[in-house]
Amino acid sequence: MNKNRLITLLSDFGLKDVYVGVMKGVITGINSHLAVVDLTHQIPPQNIAAGRFNLMNAYSYFPVGTVHIAVVDPGVGSQRRGIALQIEQGFLVGPDNGLFSGILAQSRVLAAVELTNPNYWRTPTPSTTFHGRDIFAPVGAHLASGVPIEQLGESFDPKTITALAIGDRIPTSSGIVGCIQYIDHFGNLITNIPAAEVQGKTWVVVVSDASTPTLGDRHIESSQTYSARPVGEVVTLIGSHGWVEIAVNGGSAQQALKMDVGSPVEVVVSLEMKG
Amino acid sequence: MNKNRLITLLSDFGLKDVYVGVMKGVITGINSHLAVVDLTHQIPPQNIAAGRFNLMNAYSYFPVGTVHIAVVDPGVGSQRRGIALQIEQGFLVGPDNGLFSGILAQSRVLAAVELTNPNYWRTPTPSTTFHGRDIFAPVGAHLASGVPIEQLGESFDPKTITALAIGDRIPTSSGIVGCIQYIDHFGNLITNIPAAEVQGKTWVVVVSDASTPTLGDRHIESSQTYSARPVGEVVTLIGSHGWVEIAVNGGSAQQALKMDVGSPVEVVVSLEMKG
Amino acid sequence: MNKNRLITLLSDFGLKDVYVGVMKGVITGINSHLAVVDLTHQIPPQNIAAGRFNLMNAYSYFPVGTVHIAVVDPGVGSQRRGIALQIEQGFLVGPDNGLFSGILAQSRVLAAVELTNPNYWRTPTPSTTFHGRDIFAPVGAHLASGVPIEQLGESFDPKTITALAIGDRIPTSSGIVGCIQYIDHFGNLITNIPAAEVQGKTWVVVVSDASTPTLGDRHIESSQTYSARPVGEVVTLIGSHGWVEIAVNGGSAQQALKMDVGSPVEVVVSLEMKG
Repeated sequence: MNKNRLITLLSDFGLKDVYVGVMKGVITGINSHLAVVDLTHQIPPQNIAAGRFNLMNAYSYFPVGTVHIAVVDPGVGSQRRGIALQIEQGFLVGPDNGLFSGILAQSRVLAAVELTNPNYWRTPTPSTTFHGRDIFAPVGAHLASGVPIEQLGESFDPKTITALAIGDRIPTSSGIVGCIQYIDHFGNLITNIPAAEVQGKTWVVVVSDASTPTLGDRHIESSQTYSARPVGEVVTLIGSHGWVEIAVNGGSAQQALKMDVGSPVEVVVSLEMKG
Repeated sequence: MNKNRLITLLSDFGLKDVYVGVMKGVITGINSHLAVVDLTHQIPPQNIAAGRFNLMNAYSYFPVGTVHIAVVDPGVGSQRRGIALQIEQGFLVGPDNGLFSGILAQSRVLAAVELTNPNYWRTPTPSTTFHGRDIFAPVGAHLASGVPIEQLGESFDPKTITALAIGDRIPTSSGIVGCIQYIDHFGNLITNIPAAEVQGKTWVVVVSDASTPTLGDRHIESSQTYSARPVGEVVTLIGSHGWVEIAVNGGSAQQALKMDVGSPVEVVVSLEMKG
Repeated sequence: MNKNRLITLLSDFGLKDVYVGVMKGVITGINSHLAVVDLTHQIPPQNIAAGRFNLMNAYSYFPVGTVHIAVVDPGVGSQRRGIALQIEQGFLVGPDNGLFSGILAQSRVLAAVELTNPNYWRTPTPSTTFHGRDIFAPVGAHLASGVPIEQLGESFDPKTITALAIGDRIPTSSGIVGCIQYIDHFGNLITNIPAAEVQGKTWVVVVSDASTPTLGDRHIESSQTYSARPVGEVVTLIGSHGWVEIAVNGGSAQQALKMDVGSPVEVVVSLEMKG
């Protein structure tokens, strides 16, 4: 049995400093055969919601057994728990602050452990400001090397894991009202409305376009690809994450529409046939 | 025979989101022994020319057999082909939109295949917006694992590969006129004039300096190293990419000269001996 | 004996271009079994002090024998030496310009060699502008593969290694005056005052707050964790690097206090018991 599982890292550490490199040094010192993949380290500082979104959209593409270490941790050093969770797809390690609640909306928890066993930490007296280095990286490396999750600390009831809501979704007579939950590097506006709501249908997204406030609502018709419309035009489609997305062919929807995370979005699903 | 070739990744995905991490998850799921090196993921969005330049300047430094996966893909989901190419140095995988035309100006194509065989995709129904994850990463992982390129789809005539011009070069009585083709992280201005035009000679670069428009043309003398001139002074030299380059010792030539990609540059080659 | 040591890379190359990827291509071409960890490539261009700080704070977290290649090299192509150093913790490879002086304040040099043997370079005629690719990466790869350091060139006296001062520290009757030596991604202000000066005590940091110039000095009380104070409040604590640090809970101390590298900081250590 191969005991060397893959590790992924996600954080808000940025790439300017050596925080991420140091975590990899700690991991390699525990087991030099472990491979590490960066998910991203450019989560906006202390933005747990952005961390949750990115984790949720990444974990299912990794081999079963992968250990995901996530550190967006404004409460480091306080009483918030450090935890390790086992799900069918693999393992999750990090602070208990809602980071994993996007994944947990899709996956059952098989085991939940609070990281109370200092034998698997880098040092029994961890820094009060960098648990990524002193607790989460070494615990993740041990998990990836085959240490049973139960040895990492005391089990607890998964129902007590901190949840973080994703933004309300309200059904309407003709569709659903939701909001922008994330804006990616391209300026694509990703809503909290899942593909299942519109799959196999055409639809119109209605937004309040802050760039032309006096013109009232703006209607955007659904499309299959970014390039189905002329360059510079706004489209809505099912994005690669599996959510309804608003984009601009060859441009940034964020810049075009001046919308932000939390901005409301209405999806109006068209009838299959029009009279 | 070692079937585990190196893979490189180049894209315009940025590092803010998990797009790059997800591609690595897909690759590792196919073959956990493959090593992956990032060339860059900060190609400006949809900028095929910048992708072409960076690929062209990187591929020759990698071991023979390396698989280069490149995804700058504004036409994703449209009728543009996905392709795999074999050259003497290795393999190229990505959209057929000119990304590889810098490399192909230097290398003969040994095999060209359109990626039509869904057996080597992540799923037979790929996303219309993220072929990097669903087609290019898995195809590259299979290539790097030893799958023959012919199995990936139908062969086609390499003459039909999309080309992207690099900017005109016009010989003059005393040298050559070209343009800036790329500006790097340091603000170095890299021209489209190859080292061969000036090798073993001294030369002067003549530019229209937008920072001092009323002063007319600016003459910059050639040098061997950035530090051959005082800090803050503009120099021209043969850069590490093998092109005539304009730089500022300890600073940014882009900021000093306010030039941009496409700005014209004249190289005047000096006589070996002056009267 | 395992001859495949870990390699780390640190540079000011940024991630926009393929400079870092090319170095990894060169390393892999020499030994495909070497693992490479990025410390950071976002050292501000030509900022040797920032490179020194980050190296000093990272090296001790890596396994013994790790080879650290560092390239912040404004003098590339000039007469500055390229060097390899052996310390108890591992090896250091890069230009002799002060980059390693933070580490060397903590570690004894066991061997010092000038990189004069072209057998271990990528080419006997290296570029005058990119020694990272042509000298430091290949030399580091050979070192990590087990080549004895003595073969890389001529030994020299470690006393002649270039030093770079860290900013003065002046003891006072009640503590010490130092300065900000580094500002990290979170805007945390890291002083040049080591933890040992305040360990086990409480203290107050006194700064001239440029954001409120008319109010005179600002006093900041010490704390154990970022979150010990309300969100938005300024704290001082021992940071994870082991230096006295000024931070804002959930925010940026740099923005709050408008301080910069070099700004003076006074630490006043409290008596254990006050009258």
